[in-house]
Amino acid sequence: MAKQKLIIEVRVNEGAMRQNSPHVPYSPEEIAGQAVDCWRQGASVVHYHARDPETGAPSSDVELYADVVRRIRRESDLITFPTLGASMLPTAQERLAHIVEMAKDPATRPDCIPVDMLTTNLDWYDSERKAFNSVDRVYLNTTQMLTYLCETTAAIGVRPVSMIWDVSGVRLSEAFLEMGLYKDPLFCEVTLFGDRFVSFGHPATIRGLHALLDFFPKQADWQWLTSVIGGNPFPALAGAIEAGGHVAIGVADHPFKELGYPTNAELVARVVELARSMGREVATAAEAREMLGLTGGEG
Amino acid sequence: MAKQKLIIEVRVNEGAMRQNSPHVPYSPEEIAGQAVDCWRQGASVVHYHARDPETGAPSSDVELYADVVRRIRRESDLITFPTLGASMLPTAQERLAHIVEMAKDPATRPDCIPVDMLTTNLDWYDSERKAFNSVDRVYLNTTQMLTYLCETTAAIGVRPVSMIWDVSGVRLSEAFLEMGLYKDPLFCEVTLFGDRFVSFGHPATIRGLHALLDFFPKQADWQWLTSVIGGNPFPALAGAIEAGGHVAIGVADHPFKELGYPTNAELVARVVELARSMGREVATAAEAREMLGLTGGEG
Repeated sequence: MAKQKLIIEVRVNEGAMRQNSPHVPYSPEEIAGQAVDCWRQGASVVHYHARDPETGAPSSDVELYADVVRRIRRESDLITFPTLGASMLPTAQERLAHIVEMAKDPATRPDCIPVDMLTTNLDWYDSERKAFNSVDRVYLNTTQMLTYLCETTAAIGVRPVSMIWDVSGVRLSEAFLEMGLYKDPLFCEVTLFGDRFVSFGHPATIRGLHALLDFFPKQADWQWLTSVIGGNPFPALAGAIEAGGHVAIGVADHPFKELGYPTNAELVARVVELARSMGREVATAAEAREMLGLTGGEG
Repeated sequence: MAKQKLIIEVRVNEGAMRQNSPHVPYSPEEIAGQAVDCWRQGASVVHYHARDPETGAPSSDVELYADVVRRIRRESDLITFPTLGASMLPTAQERLAHIVEMAKDPATRPDCIPVDMLTTNLDWYDSERKAFNSVDRVYLNTTQMLTYLCETTAAIGVRPVSMIWDVSGVRLSEAFLEMGLYKDPLFCEVTLFGDRFVSFGHPATIRGLHALLDFFPKQADWQWLTSVIGGNPFPALAGAIEAGGHVAIGVADHPFKELGYPTNAELVARVVELARSMGREVATAAEAREMLGLTGGEG
C-alpha cells in the first residue's frame, strides 16, 4: 500500500522578531508573499500571527488577519490557519473575536484555528543564570474555554485543530471526539519544545514524539502534524515522517543559525527533500484538504 | 549486584469516603492505627489527609495532622508524608500552614510533603453521560508557588517530594535540582491516572509509566515511587518494581471491589508478595530513610 502523502505546514512568524531571524514576516503582504513562496515549494497549510507591519508587535487587528487570507487566496489554495489572540488575551471570546469577524465573509473565512488542549505554567528556564525568566505565567485553557472554542468555530464554519502538548491532551482530544466537539478525522498537531527545562511539554526528540503517539487510540483515523518550538526540528520531523504523520516548520520556531538563517521557503524545500529521501511524497493543498476533511477553498 | 530494596508507601485515605471503601480511615486514631498495621506488613512511608473524625470531611486542622504523627511515632519509625491543603486552599502559604505549625515541634514535624509539579485542568469526564463533571477546575501551582513550597520546607526541616504527573514535571524537577530547590537524591513520585479521559496525567499502564521514566536524566540518582489514582494499580506497580522504582498503594485511590474491598494492610501484603515474586526484597522504614537521604526520626 502506498504511503500516505505528507502534509507540510509552514509556521511563518509566530511572535518572533527579525533580531531572531531576518526572514520573519510582519505585514500581511510579507506574510502572504512568504506563504505563497512556501506553497510553491510544497507547503499546503500556513499558520500565521498578525503583526504590526512596522514594529512587528503582536496584533489582534481583524483587518491584518483578513488581509493575509485575501492575498493568499488570490494566488493559491493554501489552507489558512491563523492563530488566536492566545497569549495576549484572557478570555476565549476575546481570543476568537477576529476569527468570528473573518468568518462573516467567505472570502476571509479561515480554514482552521488552533485549540491548545491544556492549562499549564508557561515559564522559561535560563540555564546560564540557573533561574526562571518568569515565575507566574499561566496559560489558561479551562475545559469550558476549550468547549467554547470548538462549539463557536463549528457554528461559523471554521475547523478547530487539537494542539496536543502532552499525554493529557491526547486523552482530552478523545473525550472531545466522543462529545462531538471534534469531528472525525481528528485534525491535530503535536507540539514539542526543544528548550532545556521548560515548564511544559515534551522534548523535541523522536522519543518525545513517540511518548505522545503511543497513547493515540488504536485504529483511530487521526491526521496529525508535528511541530517543534525552540530547537532544531528535523529529528522529530523525521520521526513523524516515518510514523505516517505530517510536519510543520518555520523560521519563527527556531532561527536555524546552524543552516545560515534560511527562509521559510528554503525550510519547506528541505522538508520536501527529507520526505522524498524517506519515501513519502508531498501532498498538494487540494490533497491535504481532502485528507483533513476540509471543505473550504472559498474566495 | 543485588537489586535495590523496595520502598512501599501506603496512601491510606486521600479524600475518599467510606461509601467508596469501608476501610477509609478518618480520625487520627484510625489513620495512625492503619498506618502502623501497614508498617507491620512492610510499608515504610505513610501518606495521609486529615479528615473530620465524624463526617470524613477534608480538614486542614493542624491538631488532627499532628496527632497522626504523634500516634504513629509511639509505635513505629514510619516516614510521615502528610498532604498539603491543596485542593481546598488557593495560596501556597495556606496549603503549607499546618506543616509549618507541625514543624515547630520535633515531635510532630513530618518527614516530607508532596509538591505537585504542574498547573493543570482538573476535570473528570463521565463516559456514560459523555460529559465532564466540571468544566472550570484549575489546579494552580505556579513556578512561584512551587518555589515557595520548596524553600519554606527546606527552612523548617521537612523534605519536599516532587510529584510528577507528566513529562513537563520531569523537566521542571531537573530545573529545580539545578536551582538547588531539590536536593540529591531527588525523592519523587510518579502519579498515574486510571480513569478514562481525565484532563490530566498519564494512563495507569506500564506504557504510561515508561513514557515518564524515558525522560528521567541518565545516571541520575532519583528515588521514585509510582502511585495510581482511579484504577487498579498492580500493572503499573509491577512495571515500577521491574524498573527499579518504588511503589505506593491504598484503598482511597481505588476501592478494589475486584479484590473484595481489602484493607490498606492487606494491599501492602499483596505488594510485598508481588515484589518477592519479582525478586525484590522490601525495605524497612530505617532502610528507606537511608535510601531517601532522610534524617528525621524525631520524637
